[in-house]
Amino acid sequence: MRGFAQRHTVAAAFAWLDAQLAPLGSEDVPLRLAGGRVLAAPVVSDVDVPGFDRAAMDGYAVAADSTEGATAYNRMPLTVIGDAMPGCPFAGSVSAREAVRVMTGAPMPPGADAVLPAEWIEAEPNEGSAPWISALAAVSPGKHVGRRGEDIVRGTALFEAGRVLRPQDLGVLSSIGHGEARVIRRPRVRLVVTGNELLPSGSRPRGFQIADANGPMLAALIERDGGIVDFPGLVRDDAGTILEALLADADIVIVSGGSSVGIEDLAPTLVAQHGELAVHGIAMRPSSPTGLGRMGHRLVFLLPGNPVSSLCAYDFFAGRAIRALGGRTKQWPYRPMRGALNRKISSPIGRLDYARVRIVNGTVEPLATAGASVLSSATRADGFVIVGDDSEGFAAGANVEVWLYA
Amino acid sequence: MRGFAQRHTVAAAFAWLDAQLAPLGSEDVPLRLAGGRVLAAPVVSDVDVPGFDRAAMDGYAVAADSTEGATAYNRMPLTVIGDAMPGCPFAGSVSAREAVRVMTGAPMPPGADAVLPAEWIEAEPNEGSAPWISALAAVSPGKHVGRRGEDIVRGTALFEAGRVLRPQDLGVLSSIGHGEARVIRRPRVRLVVTGNELLPSGSRPRGFQIADANGPMLAALIERDGGIVDFPGLVRDDAGTILEALLADADIVIVSGGSSVGIEDLAPTLVAQHGELAVHGIAMRPSSPTGLGRMGHRLVFLLPGNPVSSLCAYDFFAGRAIRALGGRTKQWPYRPMRGALNRKISSPIGRLDYARVRIVNGTVEPLATAGASVLSSATRADGFVIVGDDSEGFAAGANVEVWLYA
Repeated sequence: MRGFAQRHTVAAAFAWLDAQLAPLGSEDVPLRLAGGRVLAAPVVSDVDVPGFDRAAMDGYAVAADSTEGATAYNRMPLTVIGDAMPGCPFAGSVSAREAVRVMTGAPMPPGADAVLPAEWIEAEPNEGSAPWISALAAVSPGKHVGRRGEDIVRGTALFEAGRVLRPQDLGVLSSIGHGEARVIRRPRVRLVVTGNELLPSGSRPRGFQIADANGPMLAALIERDGGIVDFPGLVRDDAGTILEALLADADIVIVSGGSSVGIEDLAPTLVAQHGELAVHGIAMRPSSPTGLGRMGHRLVFLLPGNPVSSLCAYDFFAGRAIRALGGRTKQWPYRPMRGALNRKISSPIGRLDYARVRIVNGTVEPLATAGASVLSSATRADGFVIVGDDSEGFAAGANVEVWLYA
Repeated sequence: MRGFAQRHTVAAAFAWLDAQLAPLGSEDVPLRLAGGRVLAAPVVSDVDVPGFDRAAMDGYAVAADSTEGATAYNRMPLTVIGDAMPGCPFAGSVSAREAVRVMTGAPMPPGADAVLPAEWIEAEPNEGSAPWISALAAVSPGKHVGRRGEDIVRGTALFEAGRVLRPQDLGVLSSIGHGEARVIRRPRVRLVVTGNELLPSGSRPRGFQIADANGPMLAALIERDGGIVDFPGLVRDDAGTILEALLADADIVIVSGGSSVGIEDLAPTLVAQHGELAVHGIAMRPSSPTGLGRMGHRLVFLLPGNPVSSLCAYDFFAGRAIRALGGRTKQWPYRPMRGALNRKISSPIGRLDYARVRIVNGTVEPLATAGASVLSSATRADGFVIVGDDSEGFAAGANVEVWLYA
């Protein structure tokens, strides 16, 4: 009950953690589910898109030569020998003074090398003979034709490994014939929420019990960072039960609560006995009673039960690992902005501080908070400012970096 | 086949569209699924969190008076009369010169109003009598005690309607006893992809057919914006089939392909005949052949089949509607940045242009693209620049706003 004999710096904790982080293996997922996933391998097209020359406008496919010299005052007659529609080519070929009516996307018939737009012709009266039109302007070869491979040439390297797939990327993958994407597997995360004072989420708090806040919060954070959550419910503060959970079928185990050095703090001892407790106690506020370690192949994060500490320790350590195992950036998913502090933030040298702030008329206002147990401070806040362990804080008026929650 | 007689401005299209947009009704969803959803109603707490005074540190609960004057040289003896753990209160009360050992989070026993941290006591030898300790420092009333309601006071308005729920918000909702959140219903979007030249996504393109790019892209866009996608597969260019799809059980119908004024462009005529075709033809590039309308209660978006046009028309109109119906901002979900153009962008007055750009060494480089059918230009691009219809474009060196895709 005497507290931590010594605390690790955040930098030392990162140094250990980052050495453990390598992207997981890959899996093939249907494109339908691949948005936002991370490519595990580069993609090279083995087809041309489109695979044929096609009309880029509605109009008439012609040999450009047939329109040479055409103007409104020097009309060039063209015999219309048929139609081509998208997916439905004209069966023959186009000779001089002939035209095939085409819709945008239709295959260009052999012999035609340009499209005369519908706006540049006039339909002529058809008296029993083949239909004909007059060209009112000339087109040059290639005009209004989408060439084979115009979008993608066979052999083009389209995407590198590590790319987070955007909606249009799925369109491109589909267009080269891929129905699936090879992506990095999502980390499976076992969430272990302990605390005999806790009622399951959805319970009304009563007597000396409180409703679990960390479970729903951490589950949403894990999903935000690309993890698959396994959260079967609260776990009693009992060594056997916690040990079993620490050995779950998962890539990462996150334990919430009981992470310090008190007599009811079982998880750190269990990790030290059955695995490796590499870091325990970190010079930061909140989240000082945080532990990092391994149980076999599993990375283990011991997060304090106080909900703000839990949020902070998750964001510093567990979220970083989930993102990295999933092939994503280690950086926070928060947008940074800069602004002037409207009140000073003090923090002792040797400790990193996570200060919740609001943005008020463009200035940065530190929240007066009552500590690590006041989760509502993290909902009132617009973001947070980090005071490094080499700093005594920031004076009022200082220009600081804010990480925005939303 | 003569093109649009006149085109609507983007502003006119927005004016019609925005008048149609009101958030949908609400539904209750489990907190587990509520991350990122939009609150439909304000939330006021009807409980205090915590519901009792509790220890904020490991140590000894005492009447602060009992420690008055205590120092390392003036030790105050205290009899330890029991323990309190989180969820497990001490059964009795604390009198003068008495202490109850407490863990962080334990209910404060009656009579105690402060916690003497474990670091400030010394355990004394226990020779058969009740255990006792010495206080080495004084604590003031309230010290290291988390008061009832410290986090949330009953009656506090926690969240306003319209809030996009963050992970910590779910924690707070859970802590006040909510197992569900009342959120705005997600818009149901029927995706109708037409085109006889199309093969379903996952097919290798062959002959004069191409693989559907728009279906996977639009489905991912709809989900990004909070919609529920109903995309049962490609739809033949057939009036009866398209009409049936336009009457789907959905809040929004998005038709991809056949949106222009050609003979195979069936959807605009169907919407005009059986509903309202309010906007058809918009002065923008790409996406000029875009239609907006209604079929009964359904909002209908007719998007061009060319995939870049489809992306652009989706982002301008359909995405805006999906977000608004779901209670979200109409604004793009893209992050804006500013940078200097390294080559000019030209655009005629009277037409809005959507110019894909790359960020190269911090400058903004317009992509040389071959038009609306080159979807790979939207994967090579880092974002886009909008040239308004009142502008002839931007000179090289101009500082422009870029909307970043990633």
